[in-house]
Amino acid sequence: MKLREPGIFRVDVARGELGGATNRYVKRYADLDGLYEDAGAFRALVAKAGADTLAYEVTDFKPSEDAGDLIIGVTRMRPGKVGREYFLTRGHIHARANRPEMYYGEHGHGVMLLESPEGEVRTIEIGPRTLCYVPPYWIHRSVNVGTEDLVMTFAYPADSGQDYAIIEEANGMRSRVVEDGAGGWELAPNAGYRGRPAARLEHLYATAS
Amino acid sequence: MKLREPGIFRVDVARGELGGATNRYVKRYADLDGLYEDAGAFRALVAKAGADTLAYEVTDFKPSEDAGDLIIGVTRMRPGKVGREYFLTRGHIHARANRPEMYYGEHGHGVMLLESPEGEVRTIEIGPRTLCYVPPYWIHRSVNVGTEDLVMTFAYPADSGQDYAIIEEANGMRSRVVEDGAGGWELAPNAGYRGRPAARLEHLYATAS
Repeated sequence: MKLREPGIFRVDVARGELGGATNRYVKRYADLDGLYEDAGAFRALVAKAGADTLAYEVTDFKPSEDAGDLIIGVTRMRPGKVGREYFLTRGHIHARANRPEMYYGEHGHGVMLLESPEGEVRTIEIGPRTLCYVPPYWIHRSVNVGTEDLVMTFAYPADSGQDYAIIEEANGMRSRVVEDGAGGWELAPNAGYRGRPAARLEHLYATAS
Repeated sequence: MKLREPGIFRVDVARGELGGATNRYVKRYADLDGLYEDAGAFRALVAKAGADTLAYEVTDFKPSEDAGDLIIGVTRMRPGKVGREYFLTRGHIHARANRPEMYYGEHGHGVMLLESPEGEVRTIEIGPRTLCYVPPYWIHRSVNVGTEDLVMTFAYPADSGQDYAIIEEANGMRSRVVEDGAGGWELAPNAGYRGRPAARLEHLYATAS
């Protein structure tokens, strides 16, 4: 049988990327409109820095989309705040919602913000060599609470897919990660959060396998 | 629905283990009898160091054995040689042979020795921050070609399983990793290698999904 060749990559921590990656995915400020609490501060940031400014990027290797295969890669997020709120990624649940994900801290200081479909919130603080396991069914978003790039290596099942709508439909995640006034971070409620109807949860759990 | 809690672990590179691991798997010299080319040198090593001496260990987190879930962990191998042959792990193919694996170099200098069921050989040299992708169907074994502990973080699908017999049946892997006389390593043929019958290959490919 014709087999795929073994892959060799290098995690370049200084550049925040996977050397030898076959895909690059970039999010710029313009792509993050509507995610932050303080729309005025977001407009001011975009006006000052430019809508094309890089917010975060992912470099990865997707060998296939087969069940049982693995996607591996590196994510890099720039540091910063919009008003009191730390820079964040768009966030997702897996399209096959019972698929997990592994994140591994390489550089910087981050928070993995997790929310169950029912709206329970968890946080995992990530520094160098922290290995974070995101279990099946948890919505997750990375937040850079440090002053430098947040760089993480990751792996997840190749057939996972991403469902971004689950966050949009609820008008964001239940909690926001904001400055605590002492150089650190804390959670604050998202005033616009709507939660999810029971039918959405049923559909999510029913279609996950 | 009752979800599993997110997991937070720490890769302790100096100790070569996963902080917070729920399992530990240890292989001692006595467990490696018959794997090396030079049986006399192996007996002398065991007599000198003791049969209980640790050769390598794995600390990991197995959230479940569900299809689509992930096992994550850390492996640590001691350095050394048996005759001219570098210390190695027992090696395996996944029991679900189409499952891949990710290895990530943390410390030391290793070689991932890969062999297809048909007997093609590949090597991936692993140092700190090398990310190695072992594709479906490749038999793989780690070899420590350095002078210090070889430490790697890994992730693989939770339903993979390990089939060690595939190496035993063929009387080892086709190639051995030996010193090259200049402080490095090279491949040498395994004189006892028998290969695999066509029926074994058919069974392997037929039952993999």
